[in-house]
Amino acid sequence: MLFTSNDIAALDSRYRAALVNSLSGFKPANLVGTANHSGASNLAIISSVVHLGSHPPLLALIIRPSPVERHTLENILDTGCYTINHVSDQIIEAAHQTAARYPREQSEFAATGLGEYWIDGFAAPFVAEATIRMGMELREHKQLEINGTHFLIGEIVLAEVPGHCLGDDGAVDICAAGTVALSGLDSYYGTRRLRRMAYAKPDLPPTAIS
Amino acid sequence: MLFTSNDIAALDSRYRAALVNSLSGFKPANLVGTANHSGASNLAIISSVVHLGSHPPLLALIIRPSPVERHTLENILDTGCYTINHVSDQIIEAAHQTAARYPREQSEFAATGLGEYWIDGFAAPFVAEATIRMGMELREHKQLEINGTHFLIGEIVLAEVPGHCLGDDGAVDICAAGTVALSGLDSYYGTRRLRRMAYAKPDLPPTAIS
Repeated sequence: MLFTSNDIAALDSRYRAALVNSLSGFKPANLVGTANHSGASNLAIISSVVHLGSHPPLLALIIRPSPVERHTLENILDTGCYTINHVSDQIIEAAHQTAARYPREQSEFAATGLGEYWIDGFAAPFVAEATIRMGMELREHKQLEINGTHFLIGEIVLAEVPGHCLGDDGAVDICAAGTVALSGLDSYYGTRRLRRMAYAKPDLPPTAIS
Repeated sequence: MLFTSNDIAALDSRYRAALVNSLSGFKPANLVGTANHSGASNLAIISSVVHLGSHPPLLALIIRPSPVERHTLENILDTGCYTINHVSDQIIEAAHQTAARYPREQSEFAATGLGEYWIDGFAAPFVAEATIRMGMELREHKQLEINGTHFLIGEIVLAEVPGHCLGDDGAVDICAAGTVALSGLDSYYGTRRLRRMAYAKPDLPPTAIS
């Protein structure tokens, strides 16, 4: 099935959103935890976290100018910090439910039953049930003119991973940690490792190392 | 295992790259096809494609200022167009091999055995073996001051998906298309759907629809 620009523009908006959200491939499933200056917490599922660099350790994320994610954006801009927590198979339902349009005064932690986990000196809540979680400090914020989305760059200042998932070479077995992947707007996937590939070199054929 | 900023900064650079690349969660595995003005083709695996919006249909990607990805960047800036092709389980080895530092005059298509598929009037090659592929037109390019990476925004002007993977509501079953996910620098994963969730509303409990 081939869609041109004109075909895509002519689609029903829900159909178009489901289609276009499927086209980038599998997406990471993360919960972004924030708090306002009074410490009132907020939690939102975000599928747009992307690696920007390792030294310094930077992750970017895209926030749509939507009512739900706006509370998250406001808190990040107010406090300069946030947490990123992997969604694991144990918490798919609660994680997805954070996308509901709760009123500002209601915390998605309380509404979904996920636990707040605070680390002394860090002004945003982590998700108690998450197996992999990071404390982030905002480094840069741009609003993209092309469609009004917000592009936030943050530095990882804290990272917690289960010891049994951490390889000798630094690679984390996020499948063993229960981390799931997202596709489209609403589909959650478990994974199994097919291949780990050796570093690619022009004069060597591709080689699986495990 | 808890890492602070200081811990991360003190790590061996390869260990740090493996660790930090694992922390964003599962990543999409895509091949980006380009050509220069003479039609010489180039292909690079990119794990940073991210959905930016559906109307207009926009995807962004991050390109590191590395030798391999630079050919891709130069071609995109020269011609204003590129293709994004999902990596499926059938082509993991060839896709990974495109990350090798081939000299500029050697096409990664020829080097890895992947086929070029050209659509009349579109100046970048698609991957013949890919089941889901898109033709992109560059809309915006920013070089990020924080670490020199390039942020490219493109509009989907062509999208091809297998008919049997396209749902009545527009969602694409990318697992059925064979699309794989990436973790870290080099690990490829197959997926299985755990849950598709209904649209989240504050006054309804989370509900799986399939």
